[in-house]
Amino acid sequence: MTAIETIMRTSPVIPVLVMDDVAHAVPVAEALVAGGLKVLEVTLRTAGALDVIRAMSSVPGAIVGAGTVLNLRDMDAAIAHGAQFIVAPGLTESLAHAARDREIPFLPGIATASDLMRGLDLGLNRFKFFPAEAAGGLKALKALAGPFYSARFCPTGGITQASAPQWLADPAVLCVGGSWLVGKAVPDIAAIRAAAEAAAALPRASA
Amino acid sequence: MTAIETIMRTSPVIPVLVMDDVAHAVPVAEALVAGGLKVLEVTLRTAGALDVIRAMSSVPGAIVGAGTVLNLRDMDAAIAHGAQFIVAPGLTESLAHAARDREIPFLPGIATASDLMRGLDLGLNRFKFFPAEAAGGLKALKALAGPFYSARFCPTGGITQASAPQWLADPAVLCVGGSWLVGKAVPDIAAIRAAAEAAAALPRASA
Amino acid sequence: MTAIETIMRTSPVIPVLVMDDVAHAVPVAEALVAGGLKVLEVTLRTAGALDVIRAMSSVPGAIVGAGTVLNLRDMDAAIAHGAQFIVAPGLTESLAHAARDREIPFLPGIATASDLMRGLDLGLNRFKFFPAEAAGGLKALKALAGPFYSARFCPTGGITQASAPQWLADPAVLCVGGSWLVGKAVPDIAAIRAAAEAAAALPRASA
Repeated sequence: MTAIETIMRTSPVIPVLVMDDVAHAVPVAEALVAGGLKVLEVTLRTAGALDVIRAMSSVPGAIVGAGTVLNLRDMDAAIAHGAQFIVAPGLTESLAHAARDREIPFLPGIATASDLMRGLDLGLNRFKFFPAEAAGGLKALKALAGPFYSARFCPTGGITQASAPQWLADPAVLCVGGSWLVGKAVPDIAAIRAAAEAAAALPRASA
Repeated sequence: MTAIETIMRTSPVIPVLVMDDVAHAVPVAEALVAGGLKVLEVTLRTAGALDVIRAMSSVPGAIVGAGTVLNLRDMDAAIAHGAQFIVAPGLTESLAHAARDREIPFLPGIATASDLMRGLDLGLNRFKFFPAEAAGGLKALKALAGPFYSARFCPTGGITQASAPQWLADPAVLCVGGSWLVGKAVPDIAAIRAAAEAAAALPRASA
Repeated sequence: MTAIETIMRTSPVIPVLVMDDVAHAVPVAEALVAGGLKVLEVTLRTAGALDVIRAMSSVPGAIVGAGTVLNLRDMDAAIAHGAQFIVAPGLTESLAHAARDREIPFLPGIATASDLMRGLDLGLNRFKFFPAEAAGGLKALKALAGPFYSARFCPTGGITQASAPQWLADPAVLCVGGSWLVGKAVPDIAAIRAAAEAAAALPRASA
């Protein structure tokens, strides 16, 4: 079991967080962890994201990674701020090599069979399927999983608490990425904890 | 603002032209320019396309580029015939390097997050989204634009005067490619000018 | 006409076979060939697949290839067991180079314009379109075939006897891959022969 697989099997949903204000980082991470979601992906889409990674990493039990990692500069900044894993929307050879050299768990996005073949050639077989709903949905993932029977996936993009069960019922799906857990407004900590508890309770075929 | 961005911001629609008969080139280009569409993409899908590029380039105000550029041979032939920008359906490293070396504005097509990451690595952040309707439509473009927040797009493929407003309302969309302006029959110059005027009047969020 | 084109033009449907038990290989291949389908793709998704390739290759008239070829190791094993052509779900440069070096007919999968441009750069212009239904269906193939007017396709993935005619009516489609001919249960030889006869009788625009 590779390190990225351990992370993917920790809970059925990985919250995908777009947060700018570091003041909310610790209470949000505490609510997600208390609700049962320990693995947290903080996307590098905001000026404050790196500080949010550092702050969330101080929460006991949290396993904090960086998402929207597009290049080596992003990767190294995320690692310097405490990221324990790296998620990218797509796959490039340069980023895959860098993740291997840095020995950091890496979850690159794929959307096509050519992406998957390149990933296997790079020694990877755990992938984000992105954008999950817009790239053909579960039908497309099942079609891709046929020839790539050794690959396992974290579909992300457009999935909700309501649609997650269909995805998690597929044996090739280890977890899903979810952006529904934390809204864009000032965070409602009680609501986040309740959403995390509901997400953490989702059954999955691969568990 | 890069040169390709200037071209993308010139008008809300770039006519995508499949023309073989050079005799129609000047009147069609004049009608489009008079209607308000100065940027014209002539696709290299016909034997006469290079001559059409040269002829249309003589029309005052026209900014004529080549589309369906698949390789360096196409690119150099298009430049030799006066093309002022280059559009490709997809992205290859060799073509991106060649465009940079020739200092010609370049708009490559992307359809996946891996395409976009490779594009960013090559120093590009303005892209054609192709085939726009068939590759998941506006839902797919919005999903891709999330992590690639600095990229801007010219969706092309299956878009019409009726569907263009939805695309142009997205702030990541600078313009759309349109093949509806000029039919395959002997061109009706008055109809082309009217279609160009309607297209040039389309509002866009990015303007 | 390249060798892969000869194979693609042999019959309108290439059966895509997922078989593990070599005991069924000869009777199934005999039924398919007797029904009019000589070209057989055996996918490397089972422990017994290589033995199935060898056994089916002994059937007079059968042209047996390997599918789900993901890397050079798969390719060389398939060739060593008698495979006369190689099908891959996607396209990598390494596999395309290896096929050329080994002078074996090669049908790689594509799903995007970037895949197609890379394929053309590698000297290829015959492709599997995969996963055909999930990657946007016939609408997507038509959109891709526009700029890639010299390319020809074998759409595969989700196609049935009922939907095959629409695909085969497109002039860019030389044949389709079909997994509906042989079920997963113990093969019913008479049913397979009947299904092959129906598939072999499908009209195609490119014939």
